[in-house]
Amino acid sequence: MLRLYDSRLSGNSWKVRILLSQLGRPYERITLDLAKGETRTEAFGAIGRFQRVPVLVLEDGRPIAESGAILLHLAEGTPLLPADPYLRAQLMGWLFFEQADLQKPLAIARVLHLHGQAQARREDIARLQAEGYPALEKLERWLARHGWLVDDRYTLADLAVSAYVSVAHQGGYEMARFGAIRDWLARVHGQPGWVKLLPDEAATPGA
Amino acid sequence: MLRLYDSRLSGNSWKVRILLSQLGRPYERITLDLAKGETRTEAFGAIGRFQRVPVLVLEDGRPIAESGAILLHLAEGTPLLPADPYLRAQLMGWLFFEQADLQKPLAIARVLHLHGQAQARREDIARLQAEGYPALEKLERWLARHGWLVDDRYTLADLAVSAYVSVAHQGGYEMARFGAIRDWLARVHGQPGWVKLLPDEAATPGA
Repeated sequence: MLRLYDSRLSGNSWKVRILLSQLGRPYERITLDLAKGETRTEAFGAIGRFQRVPVLVLEDGRPIAESGAILLHLAEGTPLLPADPYLRAQLMGWLFFEQADLQKPLAIARVLHLHGQAQARREDIARLQAEGYPALEKLERWLARHGWLVDDRYTLADLAVSAYVSVAHQGGYEMARFGAIRDWLARVHGQPGWVKLLPDEAATPGA
Repeated sequence: MLRLYDSRLSGNSWKVRILLSQLGRPYERITLDLAKGETRTEAFGAIGRFQRVPVLVLEDGRPIAESGAILLHLAEGTPLLPADPYLRAQLMGWLFFEQADLQKPLAIARVLHLHGQAQARREDIARLQAEGYPALEKLERWLARHGWLVDDRYTLADLAVSAYVSVAHQGGYEMARFGAIRDWLARVHGQPGWVKLLPDEAATPGA
């Protein structure tokens, strides 16, 4: 059976759980405690070369690191990953944009807030938001003219890009200004098989 | 003919030029002047949705944005992009790692140095290096045990990850401490068809 190493709040790991659910793939979930250093052990380093979650271990025992690589591996051959080369190039563009431009400014601001450091680290958060808002504005501009990121239907691009955007408000981002993003998030969260980050949170985080 | 929009110093565009050269694909090169705002025009925005280089326009006129998406599109079906699903997952992991962890701390520190702001922005550079060094150390640890990033041969992963690492010293990074990276860069730069970033620079930048 597939084995997923994640952590409780990791948005990158959440993407993999959404995809596994939407593909109907059973898996064993091993949730590591980052505060206890469980990603920094030698044993975990042997399967995750960057010492971070998520890592997916395939049925044959071989590990895949990096959420984007895991998502693409699992989605290959399914409707979530278009076979057409041009659509695939558009999808890849969104996946790289999310990892290069969106993920860190959203994720780090969120971690600082969740750890009660919003006040003490307000300059860092302001700097992160100065990077994150322009990326969100690029997304908003696209979604003001398109229902989905690629091919006018829900694909892996929507799944991957929406995860950290769904919880951006937890990092102090004012999301009310992004109407097209809000509507798109509602469509994404309504997809069959979509799962929440945490079992006890509101149905549509970020709404 | 393929048409590549780049800028003179863009490392992400340089990757595409190296790949086009190594694949023997002719192309028209249009170098935009970022200082003159040539990426921020409405005309360029129509082909590059994120208003940045590189953008590759295919023979049929359709544009591809984001260097990672361009590289994968061009390399598909060539020996630089393994067909094996597991090797491909490893390669994707390196491409995402480079965009998420390496590229910005290396590229932005470099731009600040090249623009003569190394002293005025030294706190920003210190913060960037605090992100960039750990990523370089992860790369060094891998290369201390492997000749190449994937499949024990030169692939698109080596091409993509090496570009900004090749010019990291221009951002004030002390690269002498990274012996395995230095040897790997020499192997990468020795690959047939590899091209320099600028015609007038030293043969092996970063060496």
